[in-house]
Formats: sequence, C-alpha cells, structure tokens
Amino acid sequence: MDAEKRDAVTSIRVRYAECDPMQVAHHSTYLIWFEAGRADLCRLRGIDYTAMERSGLFLPVVEARCRYVASAHYDELLVLTTTIVEIKRRTVRFGYRLVREAQLVAEGETYQMLVDAKGRPTAFPADLYDRFQP
Amino acid sequence: MDAEKRDAVTSIRVRYAECDPMQVAHHSTYLIWFEAGRADLCRLRGIDYTAMERSGLFLPVVEARCRYVASAHYDELLVLTTTIVEIKRRTVRFGYRLVREAQLVAEGETYQMLVDAKGRPTAFPADLYDRFQP
Amino acid sequence: MDAEKRDAVTSIRVRYAECDPMQVAHHSTYLIWFEAGRADLCRLRGIDYTAMERSGLFLPVVEARCRYVASAHYDELLVLTTTIVEIKRRTVRFGYRLVREAQLVAEGETYQMLVDAKGRPTAFPADLYDRFQP
Amino acid sequence: MDAEKRDAVTSIRVRYAECDPMQVAHHSTYLIWFEAGRADLCRLRGIDYTAMERSGLFLPVVEARCRYVASAHYDELLVLTTTIVEIKRRTVRFGYRLVREAQLVAEGETYQMLVDAKGRPTAFPADLYDRFQP
Repeated sequence: MDAEKRDAVTSIRVRYAECDPMQVAHHSTYLIWFEAGRADLCRLRGIDYTAMERSGLFLPVVEARCRYVASAHYDELLVLTTTIVEIKRRTVRFGYRLVREAQLVAEGETYQMLVDAKGRPTAFPADLYDRFQP
Repeated sequence: MDAEKRDAVTSIRVRYAECDPMQVAHHSTYLIWFEAGRADLCRLRGIDYTAMERSGLFLPVVEARCRYVASAHYDELLVLTTTIVEIKRRTVRFGYRLVREAQLVAEGETYQMLVDAKGRPTAFPADLYDRFQP
Repeated sequence: MDAEKRDAVTSIRVRYAECDPMQVAHHSTYLIWFEAGRADLCRLRGIDYTAMERSGLFLPVVEARCRYVASAHYDELLVLTTTIVEIKRRTVRFGYRLVREAQLVAEGETYQMLVDAKGRPTAFPADLYDRFQP
Repeated sequence: MDAEKRDAVTSIRVRYAECDPMQVAHHSTYLIWFEAGRADLCRLRGIDYTAMERSGLFLPVVEARCRYVASAHYDELLVLTTTIVEIKRRTVRFGYRLVREAQLVAEGETYQMLVDAKGRPTAFPADLYDRFQP
C-alpha cells in the first residue's frame, strides 16, 4: 500500500473539561476529536490544511453523524482511527472509529465539501484529489 | 393541542468562542445548542431533568446527526425549534431545526436511551412517557 | 448617566455541556460567559464588534483572571454584569460580576489590547474611545 | 531531586475547534490545557485524581489567571510545563508556562482548594500533601 494512503491513528487522552455531569465525555466532544483525527490524516498524507485555507480552499463539514457505543471517562486513553471513505469531485467522506483497548467506544462519519473563500463549491485540485484517495 | 405537547423554541446568540477560523460557528457547537433546546423542551413539558438524574435516570445520546445547510456567524441571533419525533419504551428521538430569519441553518436529530445509574436501559416511568409524547 | 455609558446585564442559562464531573460549570466556561457579556456591552453602547474586525481592529485578551466564589449548576439562571473598569490609549479593562439571585458566583477581569490585522498595538479611534468610557 | 517532585511537560497540539475568528487559540482554551497539564502532573507524581474524587476529595479551582503573551495557531505543537508553586494545609497553587519552541506563549496560575463531597474545605491527607510538594 502506498505510504500516503494510510489511515491516521490518533491517541486521545480524555480531558476533565470534556466530561459532563454523567461523568463521561460529552457527546459533542467526539466531533472535536474526529477533527483532530482529520488533522493527523492530512499531516500523514502531506496535506497542509493551514496552507490550503491560506490559498482560499476550505473543507467545511456539511453533515456529521456519530453513534455512541460505550462511555469514555476522564483520563482514559482512547485510540481514534480516521479513514477516507470516499472522495468525489468536490466532496470527501471521512470515517472514524474510536476504541478503548479492544472495545468500540464510538464510530462516526463526516461529509465535507471543498469550497472557496466565498463558500462556493469547488473541485479538488488534482494533487489534493490524489492525496485524499481512500 | 395539549399545552404540554408543544415544541420548544430557543433563541441562540452565537458566541465568539463558538466560532472557528472559517469565521463560522464550529460544527460541534450545534450539538450543544440542540441540548439547550432539549433543556427548554423539558422545562416546557414540566420535566425536571436535574431531578430525573438525582433519582437515578439518565438520558444519554446514543446517536446524533446534523446536516449543516448555511453558516452561522458571530453575534447572529438564531432560533432553534426542538421537537419530539418518536418515543418508545426506553428510547426517545428528538428533532432540531435551526433557522436565521427565514433561512434554514441546520437540522439534526438525536436518539437517546433512558438508563439507570449503572447505565442499564430502563423503561420510561408512565409520567415521563406521557410528557415526552410527540 | 449617559445612555451609552451603561453596564451590560446578561442572562446566562447554564448548559449541560458546560458542566463537569463535579456537577458544576467548568471554570473555563466563565471566560466564555464574560465574552458574551462584552458582546452585550458593545451592542448596548453602539459598538459593532463584527464591523470593527472587518475594518481591521481586534481586541484580544492579554490577561484574564477569575475568582470562583460559589458553584454554578446545570440549568441555573445566572446574571452577569459587565462593566468597563478603565480605558487607556490602546487598552481596555473589563470587569465582571456573576450572581445567582443575591449570591455572588464569580467575579473577574479581562485586560484587552487594541491591535491591527498584523497584531500591532493601535490607539483607539476617537469614537470607540468615547464609547468605551467607564 | 526526588523522582516524584518533578514538573510535568505536556505536548499540546492546537485543535481547529479551539481557534476563533482571529485565527488563534481562544483564550478560554488555555485553562483547559492547564488542566491537562495538572492531569499529567498528578500521573507523574502517582496521584490518581479519579480515585481521589471517588473517595470524596475534590480540588476545584477557586482562582485562575492567565497572561497571553503570543498567539497560538491551529495545528501548532506547544509545550506546557506545569509546576506546583505552593502547597498549604488545604490549598495548592499550580503554575503554568506554555511555549512554542523558544517563545513564551502564555503563563498562568490556578489556586485550588481541597474540598469534600459537600464542598467543605478539607486538609490534605499526609500522603497527598507529600506528593504535591513543589
């Protein structure tokens, strides 16, 4: 397999501020962790997201979903795997699996669209399209 | 229509901390707003969620999804409508519509399960079941 | 007293996601509430912060402190009073008092500096300087 | 120097959700990072904070301050050093220094009080008192 086509594996230490009165990580936090996973995936595949934004290309989330399977608690060390499910001309779909040791904690997906600085949908430049291959 | 079966309408003022470098409200924030909508829905229907938790009943989110249709910006005033889509013996499904004036900003859904203090699925007591009717 | 020189009074409903495993609002959240108070203060005094940023003037926090006197809990309704403590040529100091009914919950201060788009300290334009008078 | 009396050094990767429309990490986030630093300091000194809470001892923040010296940007890797400034019978003061390579980004302090499950100030047990020595 091509070195650039790997999945990202991100360690997540659950922070106290991320937990709620139920003593578990708040469900909104998972979307922030997924985003940290995407950052690692970009880094791994040689995509400089900051430079992308500076050049006027943005990748907002147009749809997100998450299924919460088991609770995550303060100070636990989780492992997040981020993959690319599908890339099309102007959209990309990321998948996420969050585990604690052998146990699935959550799985989710985000659907994102490439847009320019004015928010107009834009086709991926060839280089980016290639780097985002599943 | 029964007074207790109404939808909740919540005003949301977009906070600076909720916005990201794209100058729009971060997509994880919507789940927090949806939760504020549920709090208003409970209040409206005479459900004291704090008392529920004190009595050992919790309503964690087991699935969430959101479709982001238009961006929300700092200091804008949004209106969130929270409804109950469906209630079953041990689960409830909430729906959300977030608008800025006539424009749809986002719509989403959470699927939640009643559990006891040990996290075991539990049937809604009759009074709660009634108050959560769509 | 001049209508534009008033303090801002902001209602804060404590959100579930803002609370932590100690069952109280997390201490970082207070800084976000203080910022909501500043937004209301600006609105009250006819300062359009979004327009300020668009014109290349920013007001980052260079120092913040908060003293936590009593806990705030989920769904409580707090009242935040935001005042201007002092304005100088390029800096402004805001003060905050957060109460629940008669009880003081927290008090704090932020010290902020006017900067241009490159982050260089800048003197307040006369109109802004006037509107930010204590 | 005793192995248990070391400072904690924590790597912080700036997340997208932590940044605001000024394109920098939001000032409230620093308090969350400081807390992650405290978690590492506890771990390093053999203090199990989760077990502490389970045994009915809590360490809420009663005062926090932060001085923001330079901006932190998305995806930057920061290094946070957490130290114990002072411990007294019922209170402990932590210090924080956040740097990006040689540059100071922020420094701050939190003042925390040991309390029991009812929120009453409590003296540190001898073992904890020893482990929290500066």
